[in-house]
Amino acid sequence: MSEDIQRVEPRVLKGFRDLLPSDLIARNGVVRVIQGIFEKYGFVPLETPAVEHIETLFGSGGDEANKEIWRLETPDGEAAGLRFDQTVGLARALAQYPDQLKAPFRRYAMGNVWRADKPGPGRYRQFMQLDIDAAGSANVAVDAEIIAIMCEALSALGLREYVVYVNNRELIDAVLEDCGIAEPSRQKHVLRVIDKLAKVGLDNIRREMGPGRIDDSGDPIPGVGLAPEVIDRILNLISVTGATRAEIIEQLAQLVSTEHAQAALADLRTVAAALDAMGIHDDHARIQPSLTRGLDYYTSIVYEAMLPQAPQFGSVMGGGRYNRLVERFMDRSIPGTGVGVGIDRLLAALAHLGLVEERKTVVQVLVVTMGKTPLTESLRLASELREAGISTEVYIGAKMNLKSQLSHADHYGIPVAVIVGEDEIANGVVSIKDLMAGKQARLEIADHDAYRKAGTASQVTVPRASLVAEVRRLLA
Amino acid sequence: MSEDIQRVEPRVLKGFRDLLPSDLIARNGVVRVIQGIFEKYGFVPLETPAVEHIETLFGSGGDEANKEIWRLETPDGEAAGLRFDQTVGLARALAQYPDQLKAPFRRYAMGNVWRADKPGPGRYRQFMQLDIDAAGSANVAVDAEIIAIMCEALSALGLREYVVYVNNRELIDAVLEDCGIAEPSRQKHVLRVIDKLAKVGLDNIRREMGPGRIDDSGDPIPGVGLAPEVIDRILNLISVTGATRAEIIEQLAQLVSTEHAQAALADLRTVAAALDAMGIHDDHARIQPSLTRGLDYYTSIVYEAMLPQAPQFGSVMGGGRYNRLVERFMDRSIPGTGVGVGIDRLLAALAHLGLVEERKTVVQVLVVTMGKTPLTESLRLASELREAGISTEVYIGAKMNLKSQLSHADHYGIPVAVIVGEDEIANGVVSIKDLMAGKQARLEIADHDAYRKAGTASQVTVPRASLVAEVRRLLA
Repeated sequence: MSEDIQRVEPRVLKGFRDLLPSDLIARNGVVRVIQGIFEKYGFVPLETPAVEHIETLFGSGGDEANKEIWRLETPDGEAAGLRFDQTVGLARALAQYPDQLKAPFRRYAMGNVWRADKPGPGRYRQFMQLDIDAAGSANVAVDAEIIAIMCEALSALGLREYVVYVNNRELIDAVLEDCGIAEPSRQKHVLRVIDKLAKVGLDNIRREMGPGRIDDSGDPIPGVGLAPEVIDRILNLISVTGATRAEIIEQLAQLVSTEHAQAALADLRTVAAALDAMGIHDDHARIQPSLTRGLDYYTSIVYEAMLPQAPQFGSVMGGGRYNRLVERFMDRSIPGTGVGVGIDRLLAALAHLGLVEERKTVVQVLVVTMGKTPLTESLRLASELREAGISTEVYIGAKMNLKSQLSHADHYGIPVAVIVGEDEIANGVVSIKDLMAGKQARLEIADHDAYRKAGTASQVTVPRASLVAEVRRLLA
Repeated sequence: MSEDIQRVEPRVLKGFRDLLPSDLIARNGVVRVIQGIFEKYGFVPLETPAVEHIETLFGSGGDEANKEIWRLETPDGEAAGLRFDQTVGLARALAQYPDQLKAPFRRYAMGNVWRADKPGPGRYRQFMQLDIDAAGSANVAVDAEIIAIMCEALSALGLREYVVYVNNRELIDAVLEDCGIAEPSRQKHVLRVIDKLAKVGLDNIRREMGPGRIDDSGDPIPGVGLAPEVIDRILNLISVTGATRAEIIEQLAQLVSTEHAQAALADLRTVAAALDAMGIHDDHARIQPSLTRGLDYYTSIVYEAMLPQAPQFGSVMGGGRYNRLVERFMDRSIPGTGVGVGIDRLLAALAHLGLVEERKTVVQVLVVTMGKTPLTESLRLASELREAGISTEVYIGAKMNLKSQLSHADHYGIPVAVIVGEDEIANGVVSIKDLMAGKQARLEIADHDAYRKAGTASQVTVPRASLVAEVRRLLA
C-alpha cells in the first residue's frame, strides 16, 4: 500500500506557524498567570465560534478589518468568515442571550483569530488574543479596574518596570469643539494624527494637523487643515507632563474650560481616584495626554502598556472604552471597555528580558531501563513518581541502550534520570542522576578523565524507598 | 451615526454554538485535570495551525474525512482547508522538524477542529479535541501507558465506574489469514462489521460476514462472503470473555496457533503486564476481543473508554496504534499510538452523573456599594480580597441600588456579598452576606416575615480587619 502514497512536502501556509513545545510551554505559563488574574477580578470565560456569518463580521471592525476577513462558504452555501477578533463574537452574544448575559457582564476570551493581511516579521495570519471586556457599565471606574489588571499581570510576570499610559481622548475632542471643529470625521482625523506622535515627531504632526506634509518617500500626506492657533492649543494639551496623575490632571484643568471638557476631565479624575484606591503606583499608571490609540472605535478612555526596558516591542497590551458595542445587533447600545493582550509580543519581550525560561519539555524525570531489566520495572517506578505528582517519562524507544536514553534526556533537557538496572533491582536500590549538575560540571572541566568523573559524581544510589524523596530534593 | 447602521440578526452558523460561561467553566475544569495528567505522563504541548495546505489535509483521514474538509483559499490563491483533526498536523510537524521533535516524542494537543458534515444533536461543525499521541515507539507498553492515562483521568474526574476496553485487532486478521482470507480490504471489511456488534447484534453481524442482509429500511447490506466455518471461528474469537485480562488472554491462546496470531497475543500480553505493573485494576481495563474501532487507520492495539453508569453517551475516549503516521510527508514511517478525548461527550456524561458543578461565574464575592458611599471604598475593599486570592467583582452597573446589586449576585450565583455603606465606614466594619445560606433558608420558609428575617440572619457585621478571614470562613 505504501507505494500508492503521494508524498506531500511538510510545510505550513504562508503567514502561519507551528508552536513547538518550547514555545507553547512558555506561552501556557504566561496565559495561566494572566487567566488567573482575569478571574480574580471577576471576569468569566465566553467562547464564540471561529467561523461566523459574514454579515456578523462585516462592518464591525471598520473597512480595514473587512479587508482582512478570511472568507469561506458553509456546506449549505452560506457566506461566512473566520473571526478577525473576539469582540465581534462578544457583541453578538450579548445581543443574542440578553437574559443569560445580564449587564454588567465581564468576560474574558483566549482564542485564535485570523487575518488575511500581508504576513511579515512577527505578523501572522493566525494569532492568539487574550481579551477582557466589561459590558454594561458607563462608569469609568471599570476602566481603572482594567488598568489595575494590566499592572497586576505585568507585575506577576516578573516585570518591575512597566507603565500603563492612560488618557481620555474626549478631552482633545472637547478642545477641538471649543475651537469650532465639531465634525466627528475631522476630530477623528486629528486623533489619528496625534497617534503618530511617537513615530514621526512633533513637527510632523504639527504639519499634518495643518496643511499636510510630504513624507520621506515623497508622497503627500493630506493635512487636517486646522488654524495655527488651534494646533497650538492641541499641542499644548497633549504635551502636558507631570510627576503624578493628580498633577497632570490639575495642569490639564488649566487648559480647558467648556462643559464637555470638564466632563472629560471628571472621568479622568474618577480613573485616577480609583487607581489610587486600588494602590496602583503613579509610576505604573500614568496619564499621557497624547495617547489616542488611532482606532475610530474608541470613544473616551484609552490605555496601553509599555515596557521601558524593552521599548522596541511597542505596546504589549492595549484597549479602551467603546460605547457602541452591540448596536449592530440590537436596538440599543451597551457601553463597554476592554483590553487585548498581545501575547506574542509580550512573550517576545519577556524572553528578551530573561523572564521566561526556555524549556523543551515539562518532563522532570526520565526512567532509563538498563540491560535485561523488564520494562514493567520502569513502569512501576514511574507510577510511584507520578503518584507523587512528578512528571515522568519512561523511555520506550527504538534503541534501548543507555546512550540513546541519556541523549534523549539531554536533547529535551530532562533534569533527572532514574536508572533501573539488574543490579539495582537485585539490591533494592535505584540510581538517580542529576543531569543538570552533570552537564554544568562537564562544562567547567577541560580534562577528559575529570569530565567523565563529573558525570559519575552527579549520580547517587539510594534505597528504593527513598526514590521520591531523593528526586524531590534534586528537583528543588 | 447610529441611523446608518444596518441591523444584523445575532445568530451563529448552523452546526456552531457559543460556549457560555457555565459551559466553559465546567469544560475548563475538566480540561485542566486532563492536561495535568497528560503532563504527568511526560506529554508536551504542540500546536499546529487551524488552516493547512489542502494537500496536507487531503487523504490523511481517508475518503470520509476528505468530504468533511472545510475548504478555503488563501489571499495568495492557494488551496487550503480547516483541520479536521489534530493528528495530521502532528504528522506534518514530525516530518518537518525531525531534529527538534526527536523520537520518541509524546505530544498533547487541545484545540478546535472543523468538519463540514451534517450537524445534528451533539454533532457540531466545530468542536474541541484533547489528543495525546506517542510517536516513535513500536513497543505496545506505550499503549498501556495511554490506557493508564485514560483510567487516571476518569478517576480524577470523580468517576468510580469506568472501563477501558482494549484489544489487538491483528488477532482477527491473523485468524482470517489462517482461513485463507489474506486481502487487506476483506480483512478491514470484517473489522468494520465487527465494530457494529453492539449496535446491530450478533445475528446481524454473522449475516454481514456471510452473504449480507437487508436492513430495517429494506436496503441491502452487502456481505463479506465468508464461509460459515470461518465466521464461526471469528465469532468464537470475539466472544471470549473472562474475569481478568490474564484469563481472557489464556482463552484466546486456545483459539489461535499461527505465528502471526502468537505475535498479536504477545502484544496483548505486553499490554496486560504493563497495566499490572502500573496498578490498573482488571475492572478498569478489560480485554474485549470484539473491539475493532472501525477506522481503517488503526493497525493493531485499539482502546476505548466507556462509562457503565452512562452507557448512552457511548465511548468518551478512544484511540489506538497506527504505524504509518508520517509516511505521507517523508520517506519513512514512524509508529504511533494515541487517544482522543471526546470532551463534549465526556462533559455531558459527567453532568448527567452529577460530577460537574453548574456554575455561571467564577466570582466568589460581590462588593455591593450602598447609598452615598464612594465607589473607591468598594474598590479598596475588593483589592484586599483579591490580594488574598479571592475572586471579587465590584458591582458597577447602570443602577446602583441594593436590589439591583443583590439581584445581580443572585442571577450569576455569586455566593457572598460584602456590603459597604456609610454606617459601615463610619464604624470601621463591613457587612458580609452569605447569599447561598439566605437562599436556602428562604426556600424552606413559607411565611413572609420569617422569609425576610432569614435574609437578615445570613448577614454578619464584622470589624474591617476580619474581612478576609470571615469571607474565607463562608466560602469554605
